[in-house]
Amino acid sequence: MGKGQETKRAIVDEALDLVSTGGLNGLSIGALARATGMSKSGLFAHFQSKEQLQLTVLHVATERFVDIVIAPALKQPRGEPRVRAMFENSMKQWESELPGGCIYYAVSAELDDQPGAARDFLIKTQLDYQDTIRRAAEIAVEEGHFRKNLDLDQFVFEFGSITSAYHYSGRLLGKPDAEMRALKAFDALLARSR
Amino acid sequence: MGKGQETKRAIVDEALDLVSTGGLNGLSIGALARATGMSKSGLFAHFQSKEQLQLTVLHVATERFVDIVIAPALKQPRGEPRVRAMFENSMKQWESELPGGCIYYAVSAELDDQPGAARDFLIKTQLDYQDTIRRAAEIAVEEGHFRKNLDLDQFVFEFGSITSAYHYSGRLLGKPDAEMRALKAFDALLARSR
Repeated sequence: MGKGQETKRAIVDEALDLVSTGGLNGLSIGALARATGMSKSGLFAHFQSKEQLQLTVLHVATERFVDIVIAPALKQPRGEPRVRAMFENSMKQWESELPGGCIYYAVSAELDDQPGAARDFLIKTQLDYQDTIRRAAEIAVEEGHFRKNLDLDQFVFEFGSITSAYHYSGRLLGKPDAEMRALKAFDALLARSR
Repeated sequence: MGKGQETKRAIVDEALDLVSTGGLNGLSIGALARATGMSKSGLFAHFQSKEQLQLTVLHVATERFVDIVIAPALKQPRGEPRVRAMFENSMKQWESELPGGCIYYAVSAELDDQPGAARDFLIKTQLDYQDTIRRAAEIAVEEGHFRKNLDLDQFVFEFGSITSAYHYSGRLLGKPDAEMRALKAFDALLARSR
């Protein structure tokens, strides 16, 4: 990376932390100037608009999500072990990577009624992620780990519901048993998929 | 209600719609002035601060939630019918009441890293709601509808996970099968609780 790219990367890292904590609404050029110690005009040299900054943050978040959650899971054996790795990586490694927890949880409710490029990009990444979970579960059926008549779309829905409740229960309500509840729900989901 | 109270109520109704769509960050005095056609100073006569406006909105939302979701469910027979009514009311009646859907979904991720009176109030209402679900499930155990060894806290966690995934799948991803998936997940939760 050249020096310009390095600087840009450092800015995006700060921006990701801001979004993780305060959502995209927390990502003003002013807040980013305070967090990086750069001037607003210096920041504008890297990002021409707030929308472009938002898109860059979501783009980098997706790259990180692939590196932290998806790629390590794809190295696990086909079938149930891979499905489990996706779940555990998304709950633990991904969650601990950012100060306010999962960036997708932080922005999903925020963007659902705000049409625009950021929302379109978020939806695409989420549909990609759901396809990846669905395919991993389908492989588990092919491997004989899950039953043949498993409703794959229902599996994806319930998989996502657990991580969502985990964020709500752990982050908002501050319940110490959130992780245990999520793991128990996931074990039960696997058990009834076999 | 006196005329002043009526005006205040009309303002809060507009404010609830704004929060449902854009979260608490969408609730600026400026946006509220545009939505109500009132002047900013006129609004400040009713709400001395943005924080007080936020609290009033959350307070009125809670009253509505009790009227729309909880009270009708408490009129259902003790046990499983009451548990089911809480779920269906929270998904359908409550969801259709507001233009951007459930206000709690809209503000939960937003407030989870923002300490303050609004967050404290939200957490209290959510813990109250969880207590109500928990007690309804406990009654279902007492009535013999649910099994004696049911893990009530786990039931509450999974109950909430379904509505959360319903919002994400229906509101953000725009999936037409979101309601069907949620009802199927809930039926399965009831089946394994019996």
